[in-house]
This record gives sequence, structure tokens and C-alpha cells, in this order.
Amino acid sequence: MAQERQLHLGAFMRPVSLHTGAWRYPGAYRDANFNFKHLKEFAQKLEAAKFDAFFMADHLAVLNMPVEALKRSQTVTSFEPFTLLSALAAVTDRIGLIATASTTFDEPYHVARRFASLDHISAGRAGWNIVTTANPDAALNFGLEEHVEHGERYHRAREFYDVVTGLWDSFADDAFTRDVESGQFFDPARMHVLNHKGEELSVRGPLNIARPPQGWPVIVQAGQSEPGRQLAAETAEVVFCSPRDLPAAQALYADIKGRMTAIGRDPHNVKILPAAFIVIGDSVEEARAKRARLDSLVHYDSAIASLSIALGHDASGFDPDGPLPDIAETNASKTGRTQVLKLAQEDQLTVRQLAQRYGGYSGLAFVGTPETIADQMTKWLVECGSDGFNVVFPYLPQGLGDVVDRLVPELQRRGIFRLDYEGTTLREHLGLPRPTNRFFASP
Amino acid sequence: MAQERQLHLGAFMRPVSLHTGAWRYPGAYRDANFNFKHLKEFAQKLEAAKFDAFFMADHLAVLNMPVEALKRSQTVTSFEPFTLLSALAAVTDRIGLIATASTTFDEPYHVARRFASLDHISAGRAGWNIVTTANPDAALNFGLEEHVEHGERYHRAREFYDVVTGLWDSFADDAFTRDVESGQFFDPARMHVLNHKGEELSVRGPLNIARPPQGWPVIVQAGQSEPGRQLAAETAEVVFCSPRDLPAAQALYADIKGRMTAIGRDPHNVKILPAAFIVIGDSVEEARAKRARLDSLVHYDSAIASLSIALGHDASGFDPDGPLPDIAETNASKTGRTQVLKLAQEDQLTVRQLAQRYGGYSGLAFVGTPETIADQMTKWLVECGSDGFNVVFPYLPQGLGDVVDRLVPELQRRGIFRLDYEGTTLREHLGLPRPTNRFFASP
Repeated sequence: MAQERQLHLGAFMRPVSLHTGAWRYPGAYRDANFNFKHLKEFAQKLEAAKFDAFFMADHLAVLNMPVEALKRSQTVTSFEPFTLLSALAAVTDRIGLIATASTTFDEPYHVARRFASLDHISAGRAGWNIVTTANPDAALNFGLEEHVEHGERYHRAREFYDVVTGLWDSFADDAFTRDVESGQFFDPARMHVLNHKGEELSVRGPLNIARPPQGWPVIVQAGQSEPGRQLAAETAEVVFCSPRDLPAAQALYADIKGRMTAIGRDPHNVKILPAAFIVIGDSVEEARAKRARLDSLVHYDSAIASLSIALGHDASGFDPDGPLPDIAETNASKTGRTQVLKLAQEDQLTVRQLAQRYGGYSGLAFVGTPETIADQMTKWLVECGSDGFNVVFPYLPQGLGDVVDRLVPELQRRGIFRLDYEGTTLREHLGLPRPTNRFFASP
Repeated sequence: MAQERQLHLGAFMRPVSLHTGAWRYPGAYRDANFNFKHLKEFAQKLEAAKFDAFFMADHLAVLNMPVEALKRSQTVTSFEPFTLLSALAAVTDRIGLIATASTTFDEPYHVARRFASLDHISAGRAGWNIVTTANPDAALNFGLEEHVEHGERYHRAREFYDVVTGLWDSFADDAFTRDVESGQFFDPARMHVLNHKGEELSVRGPLNIARPPQGWPVIVQAGQSEPGRQLAAETAEVVFCSPRDLPAAQALYADIKGRMTAIGRDPHNVKILPAAFIVIGDSVEEARAKRARLDSLVHYDSAIASLSIALGHDASGFDPDGPLPDIAETNASKTGRTQVLKLAQEDQLTVRQLAQRYGGYSGLAFVGTPETIADQMTKWLVECGSDGFNVVFPYLPQGLGDVVDRLVPELQRRGIFRLDYEGTTLREHLGLPRPTNRFFASP
């Protein structure tokens, strides 16, 4: 029954839900995003369901939003990725652990070392989500007056990747002999000093930790700008993305895999996993009602402010219970406007519903029964929209429990998701090759 | 029976032994320093013995020693502190977790955030060992051509401390209300934006994590230079030090507590814990024989090279089995020379034994039975040489097991070490007050 192509499932876990009303949903843990016991429970459930990975986005500042919106955000207090994922590594055995680290506001020696350490502690389950940090407020926390320009950030990111992967290759896999008799702990001929001197970075090496069990932790990338796509084609092994619908996903999928072919990389060696917000009910109607209830928990003042920014038009005077009126197009924010108009049209939303949908979670959503959602996921897989999904939960623990207890078994019945892990490392879960050491032949 | 003053015990755990021959000792784990299962076992044993803390020193480079010595070092591959301590936090409940972080090669926003995160994950067990990083090779891994000068490093360290502690105070302890009814997750009037602009650092804040459970993680300091002692007097709550003997320890103890009194700090609010290398036997003779066997595992070539540097004189021509010949004093390395001559004299060592002692572990050592060592520790405590010790293990697991299973019960019988933890946080173990938030009165 098993299809050749299988789904890969990541869990988007920082924040634990991207829906801004999640913590107010009936039965939800109010502190789900910042309570280690809860996060341990989630990680263990996701592992029992054979998820590929637990994924942490990251921010290097409190989010830059007006304080009236900020004060309603569960994300304002969150764990730092390496501390949380290392703690979870000690209480899980198989699930992959993907941390975000910034190439703009961190140092390659630190980044290489922490990922190598996490990979060793977890026995080969680490992944690095490379970001250049879009939030301009981050710069102000790192001694800068203004944000580093986009092109400059990507230029540094590319070189940063070369340095980090070079540092991971500081030792051959067989360098540490620990020969008690002779007293030689490692073979210095199997140690490489990087001596990197580039345009942006100067790093001598070697790294003070053995080569990671995976060779390199899995490289993850999420930028969708032109330089972001090119960086992904050159370096990424997993791409997290947020296409609005299947045609958009297919275009992105073909573009990245095409860029890989063009530069001689095997396009199978990247897995493209769009974010998918999943709400499950006994019927499609019940699932929609759950979502509507969740949306209704988004504070209206925050919601209408976000909608106004997206439309480039003050929406606070509109009738909350009427349809969105026709409004003149402005130059401000064409993308946001198009997205909002599409949302309003698809589900025949009132202004209030539209504002709360947009302010809650407005990306790709699968809302229905385990069967209808499995149908949609299969279609995306078969029609080359993706290699799986990065699941965004609506609220926790119930929304996560629904995915784990109801959707995953349906995907397994259909033969498009594993019944058990076949390997032990994140690379093995994803079907990715182990990188060779650029300085040493394998033993 | 209990004395008023009690011993505090830290375990020096990076590397797990400072003795360079440790991994070659019969029965020792060869990879004790870099095997998570072993480290978990050690942490759980230390917790069962009610140790105050598990302490990780750190280096931001492979140690700068000749490759012929380096290849015999177990420290060349080690875990990064935050990844290891966070993993250990998930499998322990009470023991304190002290990580080293550099003020010279890291950013205060990162440091504040990681310690806050570790403190939350561990429910109040984190400590920050502030270092300015003495190893000049570290600079080469962070884009610099040469090391940052000593005074400049300490100037930055003092300001770095102000920024980190200010960031920890970003939120009042009661800021996070999570009121489902109103939808307000936190009270923005209980959030402080630091807006630090100093001579060395510019950091806006706020930190994107709630105030640590301990208010601030415990502040640890180890520098013993003049600016190091002053920084300790102004900021430290624990001082790790390496006095050669009791008179030297008493002088340091009086100096630091005196400096505290001079600036208006309560001298009880710092605990001074010298490093103590402990070897236990059924008799003093057996303990000495164990140490001699351990020393004999230090490679002679490395040992004689270290000795030559310390003496400022090439020792490779000396008779290995004879006493140290008289040698003329040179200007090179007076401290090292004095230390070596004292070692040679104390234990009547041959040149070989002296070289291996010096190249193995040459600091303060308690070598004897549980009773004789408990006598020594009591004397240090009563005569104000220290408030406890930072135990350096000779080899593992046996040397650690001897301390935990034999010495600790003896200290407990004498009423100078706790029978059980009385609190849950590292501050409570150490008897240190919880810092008030400088921006918000307590609720």
C-alpha cells in the first residue's frame, strides 16, 4: 500500500501556536508556550506519533508591534532554542530538534559549536534553521543603530554557512582514538585548522568539539525572497515556506528544485515543507466552528488595527457585522491587500470575522475531518506542492492531540506516513545523505 | 550537632577531571568528558549526595598548547555549557547548574537570554560564571587579529554585567497575568525597556523572556587579578579560586570579604569555594599510591616540557629518577618556579614524579581517608579559608563515587554538610538572597 513518496511532518513549536487567540481557547494551557512540563509532554506525544521534527522559530527581540497588541501576545516570553531543545533531547529519543540561529547577530564559532553539541547530546537529531533576522528591533539589542540591509545580510549568511560547515569538519569522524596504552587521545593528523579569512568573517578554528554524529546537522532555510531562494537552493536540505495555496506551492517547489538542478544538486536532497494550520472536527462543519470560535478570541481592537494596515485603509469605521465594503486600492501593501480580499471572498466573512481571521492566523489552513485533511495532504504530495508539512497547531494540548491521535493514524492507514522511525537521526527520518567531510576521506 | 557554618560543595565538571592522566586510569571511562550518558549519571549521583552545583568551565578555542601535548588532552572535545546543562536540567531536580559565559566574545542580550531560559527550565538552578576569556587563541575564532587587552576586557565585563542584570529585570515578577477573560497576556506597565547606552555597549531591550525564577541566576566569578577581585567584590555571589594552601586562601578570603564591606555589601553574600583535588583511600598511604599511579599516566614528554616552561630552564637533561637539581633563578615565570620548587620539596619527588605531578594536577589537593580529608575541610571552614570547595575529581566514575559515597557521609556525620536540600533553587542551597528588581517593587 505504501506510496513511494512519503509525507514528512514537522511541528511548528515556537510559539506552540501561531494563532494569537490560542491561549484563550477553552481547555487550552494558558502558558503552553512557556512551561517546560507542557513542552516535554508535547515533544513526547509528537515523537510517539513519529513526527520528523520539533521546530523552533526565533526572535532576538520582543516583537515590534504596538504595545496594545503586544500585551495580548503569548510570544513575549519564550524559551531560547538551544536551552529548550537540549532539555527536550534528554527526554526524547528519536524526534528531530530544529533550532533557529541568526547569521546576522551571532558568531559562526558559537553557532557551529552549539549545533554540534546539540547533535552529540541528541545522538544526531539537530537541525539548523538559518535566518538572517528580519525584525529590525533586533539590531537595537546588539549595539547597532539601525538594521543591517537585506542584501548585506544574505551576503554574510552565505559566508557564515561556509564557515560553520567548515568548522563542523574540524575533525575526521575517526579522529578520537582514546588509546589508553599510548596515551594518545586523538590523532592530530585528523584535525583541520580552518584558517578562514573572507570578506565578512575571519575564523581560525578548529572547533573544540568532535564532528557531529550527522556530519552536519540538517540545514533548514525559510527565506522566500530572491536571495533567500538562491541560498536555499545552494545550501538547504529542508525548506519551510508559507504558500497561500497549491498553485503557489507548486511554483515555489518547482523553482527551488529547478535552481538545485541548475547548480548540480540532486533535487531529492531538499524537502519542502509548507506551514499548515490544522483544525480537526468530527465533521467539516464542526472543524469550521472550532476555527470560528478560536478566531473570535482575537481581540477586536488588535484585529481591526492589523486589518487596517493590511488594507492600507482605516477599517475601524466599517460595520463589524457587514461584508467588507469596496475600497479604493492604494500603493501601500499590495500583498497584504490581495491576501485579505481573498480571505474575505473565500469564506464570506464579515468585517469582524475577517479582521479576527487575519489577526489570528491567515496562512494555509486545512480545516475538516481527518479524512478530508488527509485527502488534501495527499493531493499536495502527489501534485508536487510539497514533501510534507510543518504543522501549525490551533491551540494546545487539544489541537495537537487531534493531529497526533486522529490525523496521523489516517495518514498511516493510507501508507503516506511512517508507522515507525526507520532510522535514529533527523537525516535518516528525512532521507537525506550524510555529508562527507571536505577535509578528510572517510575511514 | 550542626555547626552554624556549613560547607558548600560544587563539582568541577568541565572537564570532568582536570588531571591530564584521568582518562587513562584503570577502570576510568575514557570518554567521561564527552558522553552524555556518563554525564547524566555523574549529575544524578552528585544530586543524590546533595551537592550545591555542577560547574562547567569553558574555552572558546582548542587549548593553546603544542600539538604533541594537545593530542593527549581529553578536553579537546567537550560539550558547550548551555546545551549540556539544559539537558541535565531535564534529568535532575535540585542540583545547581553553573555555566561559564564570556563577556569578551559574546553579546549581553544572548547571555541574559540563555541564562534566563536555563533558570526557567531548571526552576531556579542556574548560575553564571563571568569570565573575560584569558586564552588568546579565542580572539582568532571571533574575527580579531590579537587578543583584547586585560584592562579593556574587565572594563567591558563590568558594563556587560550591568546590562545582563538590567535585562533580567525587564519584567516584574508578576507581569504575566494571562487573563483569559480580558485577553491581556501581560501588563505592559510591568515591562521595562532598558535603553542602555554605555561606553562599551548599546542594548535597548526588553529581554524576550520573563524574569528568572531566582530573580537573577547566581553570579559566579573566578578571576584573581586585581581587577578580577574588585569585580568579584562588586558583583559575585560565588568566588571560585585556586589558592595553594590555607594561608593563601585566608588572605584571599579576607581580601574579598573586606572589599565587600568597604563598598557596603554584606560579606555573607559571597561564598568562596577553592578548587580542591580529592583522592580517597582506605589509608593515607593507599590514597597517595592512587595519586602516584594517576600521575604516572601523564606522558613524560608532555610533563617535562611543562616543567621546563615552569622552571624557565630546560629540564629534559635532568636524571628522571633523581631529585631536582639546584638551578639558577631566571626572570621567566617566577610564580611557576616557586610553585614547582614547593611541590618538589613537600613530597620529596624525583624529577619524573615532579614533572608528572606538575603536568597532571598541581593545585590544592586533599589526599587521604574520608576522616583526614574531613578534618582538613573542617579546618579550612573554621579558620575562614573558605565557605566550601569546588571539588576536582581525579578520575571517573570511581574518584567521583569515592567522594559521593565515602567523603560526603563523613561530612554529614560531622554536621558540616546538609543531609538534604532545604530549598529548591541554587540561591537557596547557597543561602543567598533573591535580588530585588531594580525597576519594580515586589508585588
